[in-house]
Amino acid sequence: MEKMALIVQKYGGTSVANLERIKEVARRAAKTFDRGNDIVVVLSAMAGETDRFIELANRISHSVNKRELDVLLATGEQSTVALLAMTLESIGYPSASLLGHQVKIHTDSFFGSARIADIDSDNIKKLLGQKKIVIIAGFQGCDQHQNITTLGRGGSDTSAVAVAAAIKADKCEIYTDVEGVFTADPNICSKARKLKEISYEEMLEMASIGAKVLQTRSVEFAKKYNVALHVRSSFNDKEGTVVLEENLITEKMVVAGITSSKNEALITFKKVPDTPGIAAKIFKPIAEANIIVDMIVQNSLKDQQTDISFTVPISDFKKAFELSEKVVKKIASQEVVGDKNIARVSVTGVGMKSHSGIASTMFSALAQENINIIIVSTSEIRISCLIEAKYAELAVRTLHTAFNLDNDKSNVSLYYGGKKTAPKITAKS
Amino acid sequence: MEKMALIVQKYGGTSVANLERIKEVARRAAKTFDRGNDIVVVLSAMAGETDRFIELANRISHSVNKRELDVLLATGEQSTVALLAMTLESIGYPSASLLGHQVKIHTDSFFGSARIADIDSDNIKKLLGQKKIVIIAGFQGCDQHQNITTLGRGGSDTSAVAVAAAIKADKCEIYTDVEGVFTADPNICSKARKLKEISYEEMLEMASIGAKVLQTRSVEFAKKYNVALHVRSSFNDKEGTVVLEENLITEKMVVAGITSSKNEALITFKKVPDTPGIAAKIFKPIAEANIIVDMIVQNSLKDQQTDISFTVPISDFKKAFELSEKVVKKIASQEVVGDKNIARVSVTGVGMKSHSGIASTMFSALAQENINIIIVSTSEIRISCLIEAKYAELAVRTLHTAFNLDNDKSNVSLYYGGKKTAPKITAKS
Repeated sequence: MEKMALIVQKYGGTSVANLERIKEVARRAAKTFDRGNDIVVVLSAMAGETDRFIELANRISHSVNKRELDVLLATGEQSTVALLAMTLESIGYPSASLLGHQVKIHTDSFFGSARIADIDSDNIKKLLGQKKIVIIAGFQGCDQHQNITTLGRGGSDTSAVAVAAAIKADKCEIYTDVEGVFTADPNICSKARKLKEISYEEMLEMASIGAKVLQTRSVEFAKKYNVALHVRSSFNDKEGTVVLEENLITEKMVVAGITSSKNEALITFKKVPDTPGIAAKIFKPIAEANIIVDMIVQNSLKDQQTDISFTVPISDFKKAFELSEKVVKKIASQEVVGDKNIARVSVTGVGMKSHSGIASTMFSALAQENINIIIVSTSEIRISCLIEAKYAELAVRTLHTAFNLDNDKSNVSLYYGGKKTAPKITAKS
Repeated sequence: MEKMALIVQKYGGTSVANLERIKEVARRAAKTFDRGNDIVVVLSAMAGETDRFIELANRISHSVNKRELDVLLATGEQSTVALLAMTLESIGYPSASLLGHQVKIHTDSFFGSARIADIDSDNIKKLLGQKKIVIIAGFQGCDQHQNITTLGRGGSDTSAVAVAAAIKADKCEIYTDVEGVFTADPNICSKARKLKEISYEEMLEMASIGAKVLQTRSVEFAKKYNVALHVRSSFNDKEGTVVLEENLITEKMVVAGITSSKNEALITFKKVPDTPGIAAKIFKPIAEANIIVDMIVQNSLKDQQTDISFTVPISDFKKAFELSEKVVKKIASQEVVGDKNIARVSVTGVGMKSHSGIASTMFSALAQENINIIIVSTSEIRISCLIEAKYAELAVRTLHTAFNLDNDKSNVSLYYGGKKTAPKITAKS
């Protein structure tokens, strides 16, 4: 017999989109329970509900009171946990729902993007001790004044991981509408393959740059508390992807995946005189407006003048551009131009730590397709290139092929200290 | 300048049915606030929401877990309080919503029909002290284990009255879709008139027998804590009806109103032998099933046999009839028959305490229209007659005329110890 375990299962919005889907979730939870496991289910709101609430709030005002918006948003998960508990009870499985303030999931008071401070595991454990399936409303918590808070988009993932950490769960299963983490977005790249395992670090890089599988903060949480995340589909029984510590990965890959995102915009100051303090004058007002500048490049000097380009989140573009326009004259730049038609394409893999040649393979492959690179940025395990938006999909497919991800396992290696040697990676050019 | 007061305003489902109606509520609350009053608003869920949730639950099971149903139902008021708070904030009025567990409104643990044990007024007072409009979710509370509870149909009225009592409000205004309490249902009796004042006792009798203006429990609460209730429409600015202590009523009426209800069914045991202990055998199983028997009549004896009839709530009829069928043979009754086509028509008024002739006027008026009286029951301030359902509306109109309620003020008197003499009431017959 399988060893009894303590399992957290999180189901996203499409998995609880209607009563039929909720019945399916109940069936899956009941099956897990029947195998002798203790089980805690964390739920999102029904797909579309949160958007519906935000639209409703927008009809009142475009800047509604954030505390009150959270009170409204929190009803989404409150509904789904109640409906799942009723469904489980109706098929004979004792269960109990817990809202954020009932658990309690303590957060700070940043309404709409609150961070979990700690989770009281007593109520959960008490109910588990009564052999109940515990159903927790994701996405929500409460601050020290008993105000309802929400955790921001995808916050239910974080709720699940935080609960798993608090009750020291054996695993945390994240059920969603995709089958796992892929080497690329299957909608863009038909040859994308599902990864059996991926490290927290890789997942973090990929989550923050366009792989929409998990909320970044949930992965940070999982990494910090060492919670093994199992990402899988609630629409079938296929094995998904396990996100875990790098040194626990059995089949290591040099490059885990290719991602692209179109969430940034480019701002360029043309013909800026090359005098000290210019950069500060450009970036200080933007920083003061809490806008995060990511990639920055300064073109090579010509006639004591240079072009300075940088990216900002597309949602902050308007504000950042307005601020930039105010700076143009002060720094005697010729003009400032904005460009929203850009994409960031990235290659991620812990193998980069020990493998060289990744960047040159990337640049060559893109060059081969005549894709111009506007800016490059790198982290220890990621290389990103800013390109024209229209080339984004082509770039993903090109790089997927260039890094030998098209064929199952060809990219797999024990890349450091292992007995196998790393695969030879060469650009097609 | 008007004296500053502490006012509780409660708005029902039709008053918050959509964003436009909520805006209207905000406007009214803001106006009251602008006059220098401290104001607490108690809201119901949007009209139809509670029914929608119950239907959803019914699709899961016809006997869903009651704790979880309350978690679902409570989202209705959670949404409206958040939306009203956002609306008030958007027009410049600082406000804050409080849910049942945030107030805290402590109740027992009878999910679906919980009773308020006490209300902590600290959080309300703190927010009022910050010059905020406080918006409280009606209908909901929490038990000692932090479970969410709901108070049953119309529970928001009770929430409002209980809050008013807890914070010692100067008045409690109940805004609804009717303009006040009428001498009869205007949909049945075109000559029905709005009452300016009515006593708690009269309102209680009328609420429990078919005047759907206020939840019975809310009136009991108001009477107990001496909270003056002002029932008025949220659709216009007309004066409504004040429910208050009998001795504070300025214009006293012998009969305050005529009501009818079709919420009962009749069960009759035919030809029951007149032996001791028969009644116990009939009513014991029904009482054990927690079914409330209201009116009972035993026909005059004939050949040592009698007919015994009684009424039960129509929702309990099926069960009560099944239990009765089991008793028939045991008591050697000829048969038991059920009848759902009955109505109760009632005449209510504190004036009955000091005026005689009310019953005879009632019986004569009904006889005049050939309406047969099946059973009669009375309380100190009410006389009810059970009649065939098809005559209900005619009976209401007939009695409205018989007790001189058709003409404004003609029924008004100071009926005890006053200088005026009581109006002469005579049946038409």
